[in-house]
Amino acid sequence: MYAIGIDIGGTNLKAGLVDERGGLVSAEKIPLRWEGPEKFVADLLALGDRLLEQQGLDRGAVSSVGMGVPGVVDHRRGTIVKTTNIPIRDLPVAEWIQRSWPVPVHLGNDADCAAWGEYCHFSHSEEESLVLVTLGTGIGTGLVLGGRLHRGCNGCAGEGGHIVIVPGGELCSCGRRGCWERYASASALVRQTRAAMAAHPDAGLWEIAGGDPSNVDGRTAFEGLRRGDAVARQVVEQYLDYLAEGVTDLINLLQPTFLCIGGGLSHEDDAYLLHPLQRRVETMRFDRDLQRHTEICKAVLGNDAGIIGAALLGRL
Amino acid sequence: MYAIGIDIGGTNLKAGLVDERGGLVSAEKIPLRWEGPEKFVADLLALGDRLLEQQGLDRGAVSSVGMGVPGVVDHRRGTIVKTTNIPIRDLPVAEWIQRSWPVPVHLGNDADCAAWGEYCHFSHSEEESLVLVTLGTGIGTGLVLGGRLHRGCNGCAGEGGHIVIVPGGELCSCGRRGCWERYASASALVRQTRAAMAAHPDAGLWEIAGGDPSNVDGRTAFEGLRRGDAVARQVVEQYLDYLAEGVTDLINLLQPTFLCIGGGLSHEDDAYLLHPLQRRVETMRFDRDLQRHTEICKAVLGNDAGIIGAALLGRL
Repeated sequence: MYAIGIDIGGTNLKAGLVDERGGLVSAEKIPLRWEGPEKFVADLLALGDRLLEQQGLDRGAVSSVGMGVPGVVDHRRGTIVKTTNIPIRDLPVAEWIQRSWPVPVHLGNDADCAAWGEYCHFSHSEEESLVLVTLGTGIGTGLVLGGRLHRGCNGCAGEGGHIVIVPGGELCSCGRRGCWERYASASALVRQTRAAMAAHPDAGLWEIAGGDPSNVDGRTAFEGLRRGDAVARQVVEQYLDYLAEGVTDLINLLQPTFLCIGGGLSHEDDAYLLHPLQRRVETMRFDRDLQRHTEICKAVLGNDAGIIGAALLGRL
Repeated sequence: MYAIGIDIGGTNLKAGLVDERGGLVSAEKIPLRWEGPEKFVADLLALGDRLLEQQGLDRGAVSSVGMGVPGVVDHRRGTIVKTTNIPIRDLPVAEWIQRSWPVPVHLGNDADCAAWGEYCHFSHSEEESLVLVTLGTGIGTGLVLGGRLHRGCNGCAGEGGHIVIVPGGELCSCGRRGCWERYASASALVRQTRAAMAAHPDAGLWEIAGGDPSNVDGRTAFEGLRRGDAVARQVVEQYLDYLAEGVTDLINLLQPTFLCIGGGLSHEDDAYLLHPLQRRVETMRFDRDLQRHTEICKAVLGNDAGIIGAALLGRL
């Protein structure tokens, strides 16, 4: 049997067929064009059927459908409560799908699905915990605690990007000041890199960016560091300090078995990102003399984590 | 049937007999004199027997014994791994007790036990969550998530007092700088009150403290606020700002059903502590437009929370 995982993005619907061992057998992507909820659900169904067709399978081969949503879901009622980029409010999507495809339908927040996917990959026993920290435009965190997704009382738990690490600091999109994601997301690193370039017209970073700050991305400062640029080194070290503060907060509070770093930045050489992060956290975490500690590691499923985790929601 | 709950403090052993509804039937306290592990376990047993004797009961009336430990336990093996104030290391206390009293023995960290006690009081369904924040010498936090104690991979989860709210700030006993408990514990409020008095020799706080800063306690600034002292108001407002930052971090991350404030300070009038805290958090928490939110409330079991929670560990 297979499960279908659907990852609802702001611009695309991605779906994959996942086997019982959690492997992604095939995947599909279509642009998301919002023309109302009926069309949206019809697109989801068509996407599922297309996946099956490609493998010469029919709906009988599918044991469940899981869906990762960029927003808040009520997983008990199978309802999308609200999403950030699509005008969905209180859509009973599970029921709508089941009208034409009577299969268990599971919903999750997209960051939660990604964490669940990584957890299914990493965990070896039932009571382990995993926190996934995804460095992107913001910082997404998903919490699997004692083998279960922690969704909180309102489906909105796991907003680790919105713990404050600089009180009274930069204004965040959430309305609070000094949130972690304002300082340690990939976008924050881009802003920090550009600010350093503006302050240092002679920095090697300019050459890497082809003389144009709009070419800066999350890799630019790391590339400068590799080339021995002192300004780039400062940018990366400050960035890692910010990253380590929030990671240590999460560890001191939750002591998960695994804390995985995901997102594009996580592909940087371990010598430049993972190892210095581990060293910083090592000096700050609580109860350093305990034998057992959270393992800080890289996420492994990359962009597929959301699809795989959504497909595996039925395991919860 | 009854359960015995034992709260191991730095200076006292407290124990109570708890009925099936979670009510504390009787309690006892003896000074903790450390004369080695054998004597320690013998004292625990004698304390339990004394509780039963007082009620005209025998060991047959006891279904389980629970123990809250100021330190790290391995609850699966029934071992106290280490404690902060007593020289215990890797003591298989459950097994030692069971040699002469064959009853299930459950272990928990003391802050976890208190949170579990409050949870058993507050919760109405299985999947609720509760975070207990105890304002004392430090800040203790205990996490009950989805109806289960979250202990983390090493029994050391829930160190919410050691999330940073002022990066690079005051040095904490844990070795990190700027931890929440350096700014928002009851001890921190005492330090802040004394600092304000030193800076303002004319403040009304001096009168409340009888002219002697060593008389300052957690109530002094609140009493000054009640009497209309402007310096006291500043102290309390700054303190509440610090408290609210950490509470909001916990809520944004965990969205528990209940976040309970415990410790002596929680007995302040709601108008001076709970309500202004709620208002501050309301302006900062993530997703303020959701219908369901964490309820910020006072803990209700007071100093008995540890005993009751320890006794109820068998319910986990």
